[in-house]
Amino acid sequence: MINAGIVGASGLTGKELIKILLRHKNARIKYATSRRFAGKKIESLFPEFTGLIEQKFISPADKSIFNDVDLVFLCLPHTESFEFVKKFYQKGIRIIDLSADFRIKDTRTYKIWYKTKHKYGNILKEAVYGLPEVLKEKIINAKLVANPGCFATSILLGICPVMDKLNIQDIIIDSKTGISGAGATPTLQTQYINVNENVIPYNFGRRHRHIGEIEDLIFNIYNKKIKIIFTPQIISLDRGILSVIYIKLKKWQKVEKVKEIFKNFYKNQPFVRIVDSVNLHQVQNTNFCDISIDGVKEKETLIIITAIDNLVKGASGQAVQNMNIVYGFNEKEGLI
Amino acid sequence: MINAGIVGASGLTGKELIKILLRHKNARIKYATSRRFAGKKIESLFPEFTGLIEQKFISPADKSIFNDVDLVFLCLPHTESFEFVKKFYQKGIRIIDLSADFRIKDTRTYKIWYKTKHKYGNILKEAVYGLPEVLKEKIINAKLVANPGCFATSILLGICPVMDKLNIQDIIIDSKTGISGAGATPTLQTQYINVNENVIPYNFGRRHRHIGEIEDLIFNIYNKKIKIIFTPQIISLDRGILSVIYIKLKKWQKVEKVKEIFKNFYKNQPFVRIVDSVNLHQVQNTNFCDISIDGVKEKETLIIITAIDNLVKGASGQAVQNMNIVYGFNEKEGLI
Amino acid sequence: MINAGIVGASGLTGKELIKILLRHKNARIKYATSRRFAGKKIESLFPEFTGLIEQKFISPADKSIFNDVDLVFLCLPHTESFEFVKKFYQKGIRIIDLSADFRIKDTRTYKIWYKTKHKYGNILKEAVYGLPEVLKEKIINAKLVANPGCFATSILLGICPVMDKLNIQDIIIDSKTGISGAGATPTLQTQYINVNENVIPYNFGRRHRHIGEIEDLIFNIYNKKIKIIFTPQIISLDRGILSVIYIKLKKWQKVEKVKEIFKNFYKNQPFVRIVDSVNLHQVQNTNFCDISIDGVKEKETLIIITAIDNLVKGASGQAVQNMNIVYGFNEKEGLI
Amino acid sequence: MINAGIVGASGLTGKELIKILLRHKNARIKYATSRRFAGKKIESLFPEFTGLIEQKFISPADKSIFNDVDLVFLCLPHTESFEFVKKFYQKGIRIIDLSADFRIKDTRTYKIWYKTKHKYGNILKEAVYGLPEVLKEKIINAKLVANPGCFATSILLGICPVMDKLNIQDIIIDSKTGISGAGATPTLQTQYINVNENVIPYNFGRRHRHIGEIEDLIFNIYNKKIKIIFTPQIISLDRGILSVIYIKLKKWQKVEKVKEIFKNFYKNQPFVRIVDSVNLHQVQNTNFCDISIDGVKEKETLIIITAIDNLVKGASGQAVQNMNIVYGFNEKEGLI
Repeated sequence: MINAGIVGASGLTGKELIKILLRHKNARIKYATSRRFAGKKIESLFPEFTGLIEQKFISPADKSIFNDVDLVFLCLPHTESFEFVKKFYQKGIRIIDLSADFRIKDTRTYKIWYKTKHKYGNILKEAVYGLPEVLKEKIINAKLVANPGCFATSILLGICPVMDKLNIQDIIIDSKTGISGAGATPTLQTQYINVNENVIPYNFGRRHRHIGEIEDLIFNIYNKKIKIIFTPQIISLDRGILSVIYIKLKKWQKVEKVKEIFKNFYKNQPFVRIVDSVNLHQVQNTNFCDISIDGVKEKETLIIITAIDNLVKGASGQAVQNMNIVYGFNEKEGLI
Repeated sequence: MINAGIVGASGLTGKELIKILLRHKNARIKYATSRRFAGKKIESLFPEFTGLIEQKFISPADKSIFNDVDLVFLCLPHTESFEFVKKFYQKGIRIIDLSADFRIKDTRTYKIWYKTKHKYGNILKEAVYGLPEVLKEKIINAKLVANPGCFATSILLGICPVMDKLNIQDIIIDSKTGISGAGATPTLQTQYINVNENVIPYNFGRRHRHIGEIEDLIFNIYNKKIKIIFTPQIISLDRGILSVIYIKLKKWQKVEKVKEIFKNFYKNQPFVRIVDSVNLHQVQNTNFCDISIDGVKEKETLIIITAIDNLVKGASGQAVQNMNIVYGFNEKEGLI
Repeated sequence: MINAGIVGASGLTGKELIKILLRHKNARIKYATSRRFAGKKIESLFPEFTGLIEQKFISPADKSIFNDVDLVFLCLPHTESFEFVKKFYQKGIRIIDLSADFRIKDTRTYKIWYKTKHKYGNILKEAVYGLPEVLKEKIINAKLVANPGCFATSILLGICPVMDKLNIQDIIIDSKTGISGAGATPTLQTQYINVNENVIPYNFGRRHRHIGEIEDLIFNIYNKKIKIIFTPQIISLDRGILSVIYIKLKKWQKVEKVKEIFKNFYKNQPFVRIVDSVNLHQVQNTNFCDISIDGVKEKETLIIITAIDNLVKGASGQAVQNMNIVYGFNEKEGLI
Repeated sequence: MINAGIVGASGLTGKELIKILLRHKNARIKYATSRRFAGKKIESLFPEFTGLIEQKFISPADKSIFNDVDLVFLCLPHTESFEFVKKFYQKGIRIIDLSADFRIKDTRTYKIWYKTKHKYGNILKEAVYGLPEVLKEKIINAKLVANPGCFATSILLGICPVMDKLNIQDIIIDSKTGISGAGATPTLQTQYINVNENVIPYNFGRRHRHIGEIEDLIFNIYNKKIKIIFTPQIISLDRGILSVIYIKLKKWQKVEKVKEIFKNFYKNQPFVRIVDSVNLHQVQNTNFCDISIDGVKEKETLIIITAIDNLVKGASGQAVQNMNIVYGFNEKEGLI
């Protein structure tokens, strides 16, 4: 049984982590921090946990966050993770960082997308991008796991299997996400009257930050420089990302053959399912990524559709999956 | 053709008013004010009006709001209406005030519910409560119409017809409202992730302000002191209020007879329909109030169900209906 | 480890049962029947279970349903349960019947509400109404548990605690339910375009069948003949019932005292929580019933609000809770 | 004032037509037919029209449908329009056919997509595809207007302006539609519990019938043989289609220049708006098509986003727009 801390636990990913860890056999929640709610009972902010957790939020400034803890989940906005990562790292506490700060290996790319200089290049070198289906070997025993972004997860799982198997011309991704991806802070955009009965494209083309993360990973692993087109859209629902990925090939490959490539790639991965058809109901509130594979021969274009729950496989579920891998627990523990 | 101004036009009732007035044959929008968006095109805030209205928001501090205008709609929070009402009133400009400031005749009651002293008792005496189906005669030629609250409209239309016809013991009202009733300002409560797939009771018992307005009106018109129980609930939709009204009678009256009372009461009212069954789809985006009448004889209890669109019959539609009555226009103009 | 069968597993309660039992440590799914889908893989109907369950639906006419099974869940429409109950009963297989057929002890009452004569009065005598918070002692070792209706659960948990503690005049219940309560068969009523953005009262007054079940239980346990008024309403969401219960007292009792009565009544019950405020998010996808207690002294009226998930505490979760009690498993197993 | 008949008026497009025509100054509803509801009052099926229309549905077999009527709207499934078109055509009654039967000029293409032989090639030659922004000159005085499909409208308005102005390599369209596009008949797919909180891709690649209609029109007008990739997706809302159109160019053209092309193309079209950003709220319940124009230079790919209301601009609104053009009424009459 390990002791896990959650830093920044009052948001949606923090809540989801608490929910998962409450069911986990090998990890207990040692503490959960919140600047705003420090001193308040966790169940007062999240009444769904009434009777399930006795603890109060503590302040992230509380020195005790370093005591008697094996691993911390950092559920912080980007740039706010830097100092926490450094301190936990120095004390030898394992870290799963759900922010974007340690996902991109190229610090110039980081600066382009996050408008700030990366502060800890040395630690960055140690960070492992926490996409278990692609990098499981490196995650085992990692000191610092950079947990992938939700869109990045839904896209990378749909393109990595063919990255070095097919000759790719263009990649266009059209993604639909529930509004929980925008977090718990109320804004005009996240209001019910704005989201309900709506579809809202935003940051499309090459404007969304996850492009940096995706292209950086593809370069690091497959040594390919790709430029994707990506259209995220908010739709009127809570949870889930469905990405339709159009891969234009330089040389056509039969759909059946591509399916085999995917099945082979994911054959020992408990959370990816190659299915005939995909919709969000299949994956909501689960850690699964469902993928369907199709294509249009006349246009040499594959159509890969992936679906995940953005808060589970796209965030806290994947974080726990990474924890399970780091510690050699059953990869599915707490997640099925 | 009259000139109408809208003060406080950047909220939901302002938007709805603009939409209705754009179709109105006898009134044109002279101006629309907004502190926050003064100088910006109306269509930049409300892109649905692109190409339909050329004007920019002006500041409510702009002196021109008193020039060349026949009537103003005040779409302001309570207590903010006071000074505007006074100034427009003094200049002889007709006013339809959508705030709560001039709805309650008893200033002590006003203070209880709004925690502030009423500033203009004399003007209050001139104000007419703008519920046309009950007070049409007084609305004709009114200088100041206090436009009813949304819940109050949905409840009063369900109880006024029997107020002096039946011997009433208790009234319990269980109302469900779309979140647009909470306005356009983003809060934790109005977020999509809070409202979606939820039912949220609030201010129930005798805590909601519309109780003051309802009981004050019943006393003024029917000379009865009633004490209602009222349970408002936010449900996961944009628009509409459905109120189930349980009226316990001291002496039972047959449902058929009660239906006749209602039909008779509303026989010349174009916007109330006595129907067999009620749901929100029948009234959304309309100025109708649909009412069904039923009861449980063994418990001497009538069950009156009313449905309105909170932004139309519960606010801006009723405001335009009042304007139509004030000026002798067709009562339905702009509204069907 | 016991073997459990599910008869009628292709509907919503069947699906929910499968989901819960897949996580249960002490029970395994021996079979799941479906007339329509017999021979098909369960995961082909419910793709969310892809990779989680290998079995195919079998026919309910298959003789093997009696072999090697300890307990069956019957997820059948009323009147269809009769013969299955009889057969399983005769073979000594324990039964948890989710239909209405064995809930009402008075066969005349059954006939009034279900328009058919009850066929098995003797077995009915053995049936235990499966509301653990009220009848746990009888459920232990029961051969046949009649699992309560969803509305009945949400209402009885809100009134039983005070039934013999307070002097009650009238009970009015205003309930809002998600559309999943109407089952998986497509009808005009269950279509998205009908339910979305709507509130639809139906069978209100004294027309809904759960009235029979509620009043029968209250008579059997508390020896009181009550006549409730009940207004069910479909609202635009999937899951959850929120019931606002207005209890008019003959003699007022302070809210604080009533809260104590409730807390005392539920003090050893893991799935009822007395809370300050209630909404559906707190209970969806859980087996909890959350209850808030308030009242209006001037009208001697308590306002009890309860919330459950209709498919979990209102059906399959409660069924598993009953199974846990019957077999002496941890009452929470599979449910938290 | 012309007399208009509606054949097949009990579905969603029929209901929308009634709603629009009730406000139209130059057309009155002469009759509305329904096989299933013949003899019933229209308001009994559509209670939102209570008090607004007195008529009953008549049978489509009723001979009177040919009497005293200037124009008919056919709201029928494909293949059912054939005989009605023939009869009305022979009697010289103008027709706006909302089915797919007369949209495709090439009868072989029709057969491929609709699996049936086209019955009336001669009449087909006279039919005008009713997309006013592209074919207004031909619609004036047309005897038979084939009203475009909803997806086809949303896509053609996004690609026609550049069809003969730019050198196009590939077109990929990713469309999201509300479920009302699937009609009023209840199916498993159209149930609330299936659609709510979901995204459901279907018939993607080159499987959706509107592909035939789109490519046929492009060939007829621009003499180009294109092959589009099209991914329709049902999302959890009632109304609206948002199409993201990716146009890969052989030779890049600046976004600003493309915007000019669009603005020029639509400069006299009252219902197309070139806007900076698009979402469904801007167009729901209106006859507008809003279009935004952007692109990714590095990939020579334009990103055109269009939004319409599928029941208005995508069906009944466009039908009335076509009627207005045929008769020389104000094009906006009844629609703003």
